[in-house]
Amino acid sequence: MAPRVVIVGAGFGGLWAAKTLANGPVEVVVIDRQNYHLFQPLLYQVATAGLSPADIAAPIRSIVGTHRNITVMLGTVDGVDVAAREVLTERGRRVPYDTLVLATGARHAYFGHDDWELFAPGLKLIEDATEIRRRILLAFEQAENETDAAERQRLMNLVIVGGGPTGVELAGAIAELARRALAKDFRNIDPRAARIILIEAGPRLLSTMPADLSDDARQRLERLGVEVRLNAPVTAVDATGVTIGTARIEARSVIWAAGVAASPAGQWIGAECDRVGRIKVNPNLSVPSHPEIFAIGDTSLALDAANKPLPGVAPVAKQQGTYVGKLIKARLRGEEQLAPFRYRDYGNLATIGRKAAVADFGWIHLRGFIAWMIWSFAHIYFLIGLRNRLMVALHWLWAYFTFQRGARLITGSRHEVDGPSPPAK
Amino acid sequence: MAPRVVIVGAGFGGLWAAKTLANGPVEVVVIDRQNYHLFQPLLYQVATAGLSPADIAAPIRSIVGTHRNITVMLGTVDGVDVAAREVLTERGRRVPYDTLVLATGARHAYFGHDDWELFAPGLKLIEDATEIRRRILLAFEQAENETDAAERQRLMNLVIVGGGPTGVELAGAIAELARRALAKDFRNIDPRAARIILIEAGPRLLSTMPADLSDDARQRLERLGVEVRLNAPVTAVDATGVTIGTARIEARSVIWAAGVAASPAGQWIGAECDRVGRIKVNPNLSVPSHPEIFAIGDTSLALDAANKPLPGVAPVAKQQGTYVGKLIKARLRGEEQLAPFRYRDYGNLATIGRKAAVADFGWIHLRGFIAWMIWSFAHIYFLIGLRNRLMVALHWLWAYFTFQRGARLITGSRHEVDGPSPPAK
Repeated sequence: MAPRVVIVGAGFGGLWAAKTLANGPVEVVVIDRQNYHLFQPLLYQVATAGLSPADIAAPIRSIVGTHRNITVMLGTVDGVDVAAREVLTERGRRVPYDTLVLATGARHAYFGHDDWELFAPGLKLIEDATEIRRRILLAFEQAENETDAAERQRLMNLVIVGGGPTGVELAGAIAELARRALAKDFRNIDPRAARIILIEAGPRLLSTMPADLSDDARQRLERLGVEVRLNAPVTAVDATGVTIGTARIEARSVIWAAGVAASPAGQWIGAECDRVGRIKVNPNLSVPSHPEIFAIGDTSLALDAANKPLPGVAPVAKQQGTYVGKLIKARLRGEEQLAPFRYRDYGNLATIGRKAAVADFGWIHLRGFIAWMIWSFAHIYFLIGLRNRLMVALHWLWAYFTFQRGARLITGSRHEVDGPSPPAK
Repeated sequence: MAPRVVIVGAGFGGLWAAKTLANGPVEVVVIDRQNYHLFQPLLYQVATAGLSPADIAAPIRSIVGTHRNITVMLGTVDGVDVAAREVLTERGRRVPYDTLVLATGARHAYFGHDDWELFAPGLKLIEDATEIRRRILLAFEQAENETDAAERQRLMNLVIVGGGPTGVELAGAIAELARRALAKDFRNIDPRAARIILIEAGPRLLSTMPADLSDDARQRLERLGVEVRLNAPVTAVDATGVTIGTARIEARSVIWAAGVAASPAGQWIGAECDRVGRIKVNPNLSVPSHPEIFAIGDTSLALDAANKPLPGVAPVAKQQGTYVGKLIKARLRGEEQLAPFRYRDYGNLATIGRKAAVADFGWIHLRGFIAWMIWSFAHIYFLIGLRNRLMVALHWLWAYFTFQRGARLITGSRHEVDGPSPPAK
């Protein structure tokens, strides 16, 4: 029987590992909690009513399940029996493996303040995105119905915590939503009076980018009407706003884009992890003293040539998935191990809004319209499936010419519709 | 001050009334529980993974809120103070009216068996559709993981209760989903072995259509692999299946398309209602002894020239909305009341699946491909907004050539992923 590779997680890392092993001399099992692969880089557009969930998701079965040697399994993994070489799923099922690839990604984290999550949802899952969309759109509806001026402004204040790419993209998109798409739709409020406040604990936005692009991003956001607060570590979040040391910002809607923590995969296998739960891996991405277990993507802490941790971005996960797939195939041929994993950084992009983005290709820094065009084409290109590419391109073209958002739906939890909820005691 | 017309509900009836009153000498307030108008005739395609919610919904504010004399209010109405002429919303707010239009639609009803809803969700809201989609897709995933043969088949049996247009359309779409889109994606099960069972209490499907078209629809469904059971009133629904008298069908997924009941609007105003809660209205659609209150669409029981109740379909609601809008404007001009409402029936369509539909235009009965083309173009045409038309047309073209479904996402409630839930005790 062919050796069995179990891949936990069908994000970029797991999916690229599976693709590399497709039609190889192995039996591959891909286990994920969801039935779809999610293109997370565009999730913020679902949260801001620009795209539908189905536009940026594709069934895992359709992507890799058509290969004869790949089985896709919907399931939640909650442990690994390292000695028996079995993955344990939620309902007591055991899935044996010869080689295990942990690609379980990350969740947002609240630095020990898990109670903040209730007031400040993060953005990792489709359900997170539709919940944030619901909160943003509902805040304007409630403001429209509100007679108390202070409460009305509190409803129209939107705070984003965290000035990384997700925070910057969310802030820009929300500003455009309020100033363009919603601008003329209300009677009692002017959505353009909404305050969108982006809070960053550090001294600049997009800290992994060159300083000149950070600065450009800030200026462009401010031109869109976003208030950027740097050097502002949040010390409290509650139902009516956020506190930064002694300063207070009243806001009904707070979105968390500040921190992530790895999934508990490290605990499953008893591996050494860093502070945020990433598994410390060997240069070939295997787990120390477990050559049969690999950890890739946001689950792992891999170091670059300068001994700095690789960033938690899609290209790293994809390249690691491909690398591990090749390594597994090489081993089966009895060949030497491949050279250590080396991340090839093709550049770094972040969008701010309509016709505005920044791009760092190392040898050149781009900004404005040209960076935005590159960002747009790159994201269409990297989307999975021709159908998603076509639909997202059309939605963007439509939005470009009409300034409208196509998915302005308040769905999900039952909502308070006639006014805001009473302030929390 | 301009007289105030309050319209409760922004379905086809309410929206068409508002459009007719746009820019007229009245102040119009449209109140709805949702922020969007939903194109219900295509909701079954959301439930069967063909379309996304945003493809068939559009913000009410964008549709009518741009007219200066129309205010849109998100709110849940829970009563009417007829004496004070005020609409009461959930959170104690009162909205005064001079004229009231009740267009609150209908919900599915279980003929006194409300406990069946848990096992057999109906299809009225977007949340209903994504829940049904979740159940259908999850059933196949669970069957794939299931080792017990009887339970596996139970998971792959899908029952639709009710042989009206919704039931017929759902059954056809689910059959195509199982036999086409999912066919090759699984390892342990063959989705083509799924049994799709359509149960109708009466002697034929599509009872409002001519008998020859009912028969044609049945034959086409059977050719798609749907089992049609006529004269089969359901006597019980539980977690493992449905009972029809002494016969039992084991099934994990049951969808309810059998009965609707009007919203409680009749109770709000203390009006005389029929058995399913529809308000009995005058020939001009006003409520007896309340010339200032109108009830339209599924909320009302209006009779045709032959004294038969008008069907609960979109064209009736739209024509009634337009009629009432005109009547209100005529009254303000001090003119005579308009002639009684007369429904103009332009024809009746139901689709069965790919290249298959039936159409009744009175003078001619159409079936098969030609009826399906008419059905497709009519639904694109009647969709609200150029964007939705374009996107739905593209999704359909894509599905036509690829046989794939674009929205195969299991989202929402946390799901049991490794196997079916244990049978309910």
